[in-house]
Amino acid sequence: MSAQQSELDLPLLYETPALWAEQVLREPMALLNDHAHLEKKAATNALELLTRWPEPNPPEHWVKSMTTIARDEVEHLAVVTRAIARRNGRLAKYHRNDYAGSLHKLVRRGEGPLDLMDRLMVSALIEARSCERFELLSRNCPDQELQELYASLWASENGHYRIFIDLARTMNPTEAVEARWAQMLQDESRIIEEQPPGPTMHSGLQ
Amino acid sequence: MSAQQSELDLPLLYETPALWAEQVLREPMALLNDHAHLEKKAATNALELLTRWPEPNPPEHWVKSMTTIARDEVEHLAVVTRAIARRNGRLAKYHRNDYAGSLHKLVRRGEGPLDLMDRLMVSALIEARSCERFELLSRNCPDQELQELYASLWASENGHYRIFIDLARTMNPTEAVEARWAQMLQDESRIIEEQPPGPTMHSGLQ
Repeated sequence: MSAQQSELDLPLLYETPALWAEQVLREPMALLNDHAHLEKKAATNALELLTRWPEPNPPEHWVKSMTTIARDEVEHLAVVTRAIARRNGRLAKYHRNDYAGSLHKLVRRGEGPLDLMDRLMVSALIEARSCERFELLSRNCPDQELQELYASLWASENGHYRIFIDLARTMNPTEAVEARWAQMLQDESRIIEEQPPGPTMHSGLQ
Repeated sequence: MSAQQSELDLPLLYETPALWAEQVLREPMALLNDHAHLEKKAATNALELLTRWPEPNPPEHWVKSMTTIARDEVEHLAVVTRAIARRNGRLAKYHRNDYAGSLHKLVRRGEGPLDLMDRLMVSALIEARSCERFELLSRNCPDQELQELYASLWASENGHYRIFIDLARTMNPTEAVEARWAQMLQDESRIIEEQPPGPTMHSGLQ
């Protein structure tokens, strides 16, 4: 674990090398486009989770957490789409994210609280990985405006990662949660390493 | 048309009487609950529309409009859910809105630009009706905090209504758009009048 990753205090098992940032920053507009779509999906995910709290817990903390995350993500979406427009770029209509798709396949669907706990963990993993990569981008970006954008985002994603994993930890006895989380972290490290290269937030190395 | 409705400059063909506000404000918590769910749906709707701009128009104005609306709606959601929590209320998990459901049935699905134009008009109608009713609530609400909440919302909803209808007007020749809009306004006035009474934003009179 590098000094930087230790400072972020992330549990990720695969450490993205700085070379990844250099590679994706060769196409900053494509990276921004992917990023905008990720912010949209993150906002939609938080809004979908808003009314899926585990019974019988009182929803106040849950509702506040999801509205806070949704608000942050929509704000980031606005910032990123403004950056695209200022650079005379065009948001693409369609988007795919095989990394998130593979993570979502890990969810034990329809099994009540297990389904929900897995969704929270997948959300936590995506936020944690995005946090790691924004921080890496912020240290390797030659463009001042984008450097500031990425630097402003990683702390926010770090906060979201913590909200999601803390909520997951309230849902089951500690031992079961931690065993599942350890498994999920292993799966995530395999999935992120398997991704093909390209100018996206969750791509692999060239 | 009353002085108030004229000031709002809304094209709605059915004018909600002040009696409606008196009736729904007898159950302010149920009304807030319905309202929170509507804000969530409005935010989701704007995020869904974000990448559905009509080709070949450049998306910059479209993307800015939808991100602005999504941001406003998520902010309102946060305000309303905070108001519920402060009153020791609980957001309900499930929600139905037969008014919006009936409006969405008017959309000519799958017919390309007509589908999209209709969706924009349905969005405009819901914003316009919500604007009218928030203004009515703000003038009839005995609770100071809620009075201020409703007063702060109607201008925002008015702005959203205008964004949606202006975008719809860019999509087709004027005559076709105006004929469809006149039809939609008539349908909306029938649908809102048919709604059963109850403590919701789009209910009918007792």
